[in-house]
Order: sequence, then C-alpha cells, then structure tokens
Amino acid sequence: MSRLRFGTFFFFQAAPGQRHEDIIRNELTQVEWSEELGFDEVWFTEHHFIDYGLSVDPATLAAAAASRTRRVRIGLAAAILPFHHPLRLAEQMALVDILSDGRLDVGVGRGNRPAEFAGYRVPQQESRERFDETVDVMQRGWTEERFSYHGRFFSFDDVRVIPKPVQRPHPPLYQVCVTKDGIENTALRGWPMLNSVLFGPVDQLVTNRDTYVNTLDKAGRTPEEIAALLARWGVSRQIYVADTDAKALAEAKDAELWYEDSFRRFVIGSARSRGKRSWRRRWPSARPTPSHVTSSTCARSAWARCSAG
Amino acid sequence: MSRLRFGTFFFFQAAPGQRHEDIIRNELTQVEWSEELGFDEVWFTEHHFIDYGLSVDPATLAAAAASRTRRVRIGLAAAILPFHHPLRLAEQMALVDILSDGRLDVGVGRGNRPAEFAGYRVPQQESRERFDETVDVMQRGWTEERFSYHGRFFSFDDVRVIPKPVQRPHPPLYQVCVTKDGIENTALRGWPMLNSVLFGPVDQLVTNRDTYVNTLDKAGRTPEEIAALLARWGVSRQIYVADTDAKALAEAKDAELWYEDSFRRFVIGSARSRGKRSWRRRWPSARPTPSHVTSSTCARSAWARCSAG
Repeated sequence: MSRLRFGTFFFFQAAPGQRHEDIIRNELTQVEWSEELGFDEVWFTEHHFIDYGLSVDPATLAAAAASRTRRVRIGLAAAILPFHHPLRLAEQMALVDILSDGRLDVGVGRGNRPAEFAGYRVPQQESRERFDETVDVMQRGWTEERFSYHGRFFSFDDVRVIPKPVQRPHPPLYQVCVTKDGIENTALRGWPMLNSVLFGPVDQLVTNRDTYVNTLDKAGRTPEEIAALLARWGVSRQIYVADTDAKALAEAKDAELWYEDSFRRFVIGSARSRGKRSWRRRWPSARPTPSHVTSSTCARSAWARCSAG
Repeated sequence: MSRLRFGTFFFFQAAPGQRHEDIIRNELTQVEWSEELGFDEVWFTEHHFIDYGLSVDPATLAAAAASRTRRVRIGLAAAILPFHHPLRLAEQMALVDILSDGRLDVGVGRGNRPAEFAGYRVPQQESRERFDETVDVMQRGWTEERFSYHGRFFSFDDVRVIPKPVQRPHPPLYQVCVTKDGIENTALRGWPMLNSVLFGPVDQLVTNRDTYVNTLDKAGRTPEEIAALLARWGVSRQIYVADTDAKALAEAKDAELWYEDSFRRFVIGSARSRGKRSWRRRWPSARPTPSHVTSSTCARSAWARCSAG
C-alpha cells in the first residue's frame, strides 16, 4: 500500500492591498518552509493577466524552488501547453530537472480561460491539437538525440534539444483533468491524473477515479499497473487548519470570499466562450469547497475514501 | 570617474567527455563563487541545439542564479528576442527581477546563428523587425497597467502583464552590438552597449566606442549623458589567469582549441546564410582573442584604453 503524500500548492494570488513582489517573495519562502515542515511536494500553476495567480511562468518559479530546496519534489499543475513553444518548454523543463537533481513532475494542461487564449492570441478551439503536438515534440526532444517532426502547428527538421533531463526517459508527465474526456485521455496515455477539488463536492473524486480505472482496465492495464498509476494521482484542495471549526471558519472567511469572487470572475470569463451551462453544471454556485478543517477532522478527512488503497 | 566592474560569463559549454548535468551544476556553483570572490556581475547567454552553449533559457538560469546569490547583478547577454514570445519574456523578466530584488540587467540581441532560426522556424530576415516589436511590447507590458499593440508580428488587445518588475520603470535594457548598425541603433535608443571581444583584436573596442559616442553626440546627448551610458558599457572577453604567461598558455591550450573549433562551426553555420565575406572580414581566421593573462599583465590590460573615465 502506497503512502499518502502531502504537498503545498502555490498560486501567488494577488489579493488587494498586497504588493506583487511581496506575494512572490512570501510564497517562495513558504516553499522553503514546506520542505522544512516535512511536506513531500510543492506545486506551481500557470495563469496570465489576472490577480487569480501571478504564477506567469512555471519554469522560472520551479527553477527558483529547485534552487531553494533539496528534497521536495517540484510539480507543475500545470504548464498550459497551448501558450508554450514546445522546444523552449522542453529545454526549460530539462534545465529545471537538472537544477532540481531530478525532482521535477511535469503536469500539463490545455488551458481553460478565454482571456488567456485571447491575450496569447491562440484560438481556444485549437487547444487539444496544440496540446497533443506539444506533448509529442517534448517527449521526442527529451528522448531522441535529434529528431524531425511535422504537425499541423509545429514542424521541425533535425533539431536537437539539449541538455537532456536527468530523469530517464524524461520527467514524469501528468495531465490536469477537469472533464470525463480529459480523464480518459490521460488514462489512455498511461499518465497519472491531477484533479482539483477547489470547487464542488469532494465526491467528484470518486467519479473521477471510477472513470480513470475503467478506462485503464478497458485498455488492458493490469491491476498492478492501475494501482501504480493511482498511487501517483494528485489532488488539490484548499485546507485551512485551526484549533477549532469556529476559529477556522472565522479566520479563513475573508480569504475564502476573495477566492470565491476571484474564481467567479475566472469562471464567468471562461463561461463566455464555452457555454455557461457546462460550467454551471460543474460548479452550480461557484462556491469553493469548504476549506476549513480542524486538527481533529483532518484525521477523518474524505481523502481516505478516494485513496488508492 | 566610474569604477571598472568585473563579472563572470557563463556559456555552459559542453566540451566532450562532460555530462550536461555536470556542466550546468558546476557553472551554477561558479556563479556562487563569483559572488563570494567579489565579482560585480554574472552573465548568461542564449543558444540552442549546440554544444557551444547549453544556456537554452536565460530566464530559467537567471532565476536559479537569483536564488543562489544575494549581491551580484545578473545580466543576460543576451536574450535572443526573435525566439521569444514578447508577453512571456516580459512576464519571465519581471519574475526574475523580483526574485533577484532588482538585480536584473536585460541584454537583448537579434540572434546570428542560422541553425537556431531554422530550428525555431523564424525567418532570419525578420530578426530586426521582430526584435523591435518585442522590445516595444516588453517595455509597454512592464510600464503600463494594460495596453494594446498592433504590429506586423504581434498584436495584443487590452492585455495586462503582471507582476511588474521591481526596478522602475523597468530593468535596464542593453543591446548586444556586433555591427556598426547595431551600435548606432543602441545609441539612438539611449541604451548601453554590450560588446564581445571573444574574437578579433581588442582594438575593435576603440572603433565601437567612437561609433557609439559619435551617434550619441549627433543625437544631441549631453557629455554627462554620454559618460553615464559609457560607464554601463559591457564587454566580454576570455581571460585565463596563471602565475606566468607560459603556464597560462599551456593550461588554457586545450580549452582554447576546443573553443576555436566550436566557434568556427558556429561561424561557418552563420556564414552560410549571411555571406562568408562579412564574417571573414570581421574574424579573419576565426582565432580567439588571446585569452591568457598573468597577474602582472592584468594590471596593464588593454581595457584602460577603452574605459569611459
């Protein structure tokens, strides 16, 4: 049975009244504290143009984290592939893998926020195909001395991605899954999934797990392979720990309200292009999953229901 | 009179027999030593696909350097603008400026190696125009809360580059100048120049200085402004220090030969698309500038002839 691993997730959220440079500095200090306090992992996301997250370049932040820690694994959840040049990202990730002595986990995502696609001038309807091509190019760049590639968006002749990453054949890839499609896609690639329960009930994880396991099963994976992949499943959730429920609720309230408001803007921006209905169905009121836990409820956390066993 | 400042330059050159990860690790250790030994600056370059330099992403390496030092300034010489997305680069540089507490110097260049343009699928003849647009977009992103931009290669509507850099209005910009055109261009922008005497006689610096000063003068800059810009002039040169000339020559010989060969390949690759004649004129035999100095010759270095003071 695999051990449940705990990590910290850094959004670099820019709530009002804070200077951006202080947010960056403080959260990177918390990265160091995460290692000191015994956490297993630190994670970085990618967003652009919005206070919801100043994590505008995961490679830069991961390089800083790699230089300030010695033990924790460093994960991306996720690099948003349609906004990256695949050769540059492969080069960056190889550097970070070296800087961290092989502690990098490369989570990848398609992106979901229209304002980011508009800002980077990438048609959002191309996100899946760009995602697929970028993954192909990165994997070939990491594993082949030289390669050529001819896709719809990217073509390369006899290029050589150096340096190579230290993890072989390459740093582990994970996929951020929001939809059933995404979960099936990850399972078919044989990658672990990354899920978020920042919003909605924790029960959604049970559905995700069932979809994932069924797809792996149909694809002919052995129970051992399935267990190994499930053991690397990553889930993000907001947690606020205090001595009592009342204290946790009181202390976290402002942050929770800001987050709710910030995420609602995010969702509204997203709903504009993707149809409000699907977002409403997924997050009926755009209310965050309750994030307050006391030290006693920690022990009987709902995680156990979803863990790999 | 301004003080002459000394820095170290990191190419991450991959001579045979060394593992890429060791090269990266060792040179980053030397970055730390540079600070301990009292150097003023550390510098990073950008190259792709070639053993000549594994510095494939200056932002990633600068982020690592920023996290491992406290005092030295961190310079790029240079970020090769035609290979970057201007918003991403502005975001990265702002992050590194924050990570380093305002120690970043952003040197920018147009690129000169055809294999890199081919690999990144950027037509080399567009390099000047892409350079100009990228500089414009970065400066607006760093200094304006939101902005729109419509160029030939890049167009953005109402985008917001965050976080902002801590140096105001933005990190100092420098331009790598190889040609008379480039020197005049930098002077007209009011930026300091970065020159390399990795090849050719040191005397070329006198010509560069004269071109630069004349252009500034014609553009109506005051003697004080010109002196201030000259005081920030950056020059890279290979230096090998030993107790005697003979010892320096003997010890540096292999490295010099490898570098000569590596750079010749670089030049040949470049000559293919730009006309061999101009490269031959500039570097008649592609022989490195003599790099060996003894502690006594250090004192009467040719630098003095070119210094601003």
